Amino acid sequence: MLELISEHSCFGGVQRFYKHDSATIGLPMRFSVFIPESKDDAPLPALFYLAGLTCTEETFPIKAGAQRVAAELGLILISPDTSPRGAGVPGETDAWDFGAGAGFYIDATEAPWSKHYRMESYLHELRGLVTQELPVDAARLGIFGHSMGGHGALTLALKRPDVFRSVSAFAPIAAPTRCPWGKKAFGGYLGADQAAWRKHDASELMAAASTPFPQGILIDQGLGDKFLAEQLYPEAFEEACKQAAQPLQLRRHAGYDHGYYFISSFIEDHLRFHAANLGGLRRSA
Amino acid sequence: MLELISEHSCFGGVQRFYKHDSATIGLPMRFSVFIPESKDDAPLPALFYLAGLTCTEETFPIKAGAQRVAAELGLILISPDTSPRGAGVPGETDAWDFGAGAGFYIDATEAPWSKHYRMESYLHELRGLVTQELPVDAARLGIFGHSMGGHGALTLALKRPDVFRSVSAFAPIAAPTRCPWGKKAFGGYLGADQAAWRKHDASELMAAASTPFPQGILIDQGLGDKFLAEQLYPEAFEEACKQAAQPLQLRRHAGYDHGYYFISSFIEDHLRFHAANLGGLRRSA
Repeated sequence: MLELISEHSCFGGVQRFYKHDSATIGLPMRFSVFIPESKDDAPLPALFYLAGLTCTEETFPIKAGAQRVAAELGLILISPDTSPRGAGVPGETDAWDFGAGAGFYIDATEAPWSKHYRMESYLHELRGLVTQELPVDAARLGIFGHSMGGHGALTLALKRPDVFRSVSAFAPIAAPTRCPWGKKAFGGYLGADQAAWRKHDASELMAAASTPFPQGILIDQGLGDKFLAEQLYPEAFEEACKQAAQPLQLRRHAGYDHGYYFISSFIEDHLRFHAANLGGLRRSA
Repeated sequence: MLELISEHSCFGGVQRFYKHDSATIGLPMRFSVFIPESKDDAPLPALFYLAGLTCTEETFPIKAGAQRVAAELGLILISPDTSPRGAGVPGETDAWDFGAGAGFYIDATEAPWSKHYRMESYLHELRGLVTQELPVDAARLGIFGHSMGGHGALTLALKRPDVFRSVSAFAPIAAPTRCPWGKKAFGGYLGADQAAWRKHDASELMAAASTPFPQGILIDQGLGDKFLAEQLYPEAFEEACKQAAQPLQLRRHAGYDHGYYFISSFIEDHLRFHAANLGGLRRSA
């Protein structure tokens, strides 16, 4: 079912790259997984990391420097690709912020995108696969991501807090219905009806919730991020958390930009945050 | 003199990319530098990292995960490109192991390479530049590298132990006169006379030396490295160290391959090794 493309020893564990035929997407998909060294075969807590625009399943394992702490904490790290590849939709590779590399972790409802661009459902297919085929504990899953992937992490967690028990983000697109990236993507994938958009907006979802993550949500945002003012709207999410009585740790870091030099600087805090949240949960039988 | 291309906040310090017109190379060259946060303006010890075949000045800062520990230890990290770019030598981009991306940290003596491919002299030009323009302490310099860059680090250090006071390597090409990569590069850059080759072979240089690094040399080698048997020859360097009464810590790691998942797993040990070696030295006036 899973085809192992490559495996690399890393911090005592293994960094793997897999390929599989996705029933949801209707095309082959790739993902990466880091599995720490384990004394027994007991399933481990796992974090899904959703990457941003233009990225692939390789971005996180190459650039974030997360394996060291994941090895220490006994966390599995899973990172999918950011869109279908080779769907054959006309123009899908023309723009860097829509189409290939920009699936936005939603299920498109507009043709021709709706045939293959179904990244939200794909994430749940992938979740089933890894809990079946790898030593992933289905009862101890967290999710985090960056930029478009921060939007993905927050929305997927808010839609299914029963599944993703811990959530954090780096510089997320926190209110996509308000920003150019989100309007372009949601208009293209979901059509003109903005009521449909709001179901995939983290700030809208949060405002309608009631303390979905009692243990808190962690967000890091660089203040030197050139996309902050126009695209990200962390203040909208912050306001929604207040409405929802949701504890939020939103850390604003002077000087840091939107890239992986920022992410790698704070990745350790995110892994420790998730490990603490998931560590207290009961293992699945 | 130095043109700043980009700067990124990283672990409290800055990851920068510079461009400059190199007098030695006769072309513009690029390099990366990480500068940790510093309480005063006192010059800091610095490590030069030489990357391997096909790499650039971006490889190390993106993939090695070294900035965290460098920030902790107060080490500057400098990584040059691996060859001239755009020298216009016919065929220079045809092979991945010779020409562009494969300068081998030597000065070519054979035309047409000899005009621009002068990476050994370039490293010393760069050393002068960074000690002049950046807070680098000329009296506390170390050097390390990977594969082709491990060859570069060992040979440059053995030629100038007065300049590079500490040296380590990951999976170095430790006896280039014996292996296909080295024979191809040395034959192309230096011509057919193998006496000239031996001046740039770490194992030959070491065998002729006498405890050039009393504090030891650190080498990490993965035993799952597909290039180990044919290209690397760490055992030749080990034997030469015995002849030279040179303390060597050659660590062989089961399972690890030739890539940056290997390097990142052990980078912390290298930085701590260099910091210990350089920390005991007197600061330059």
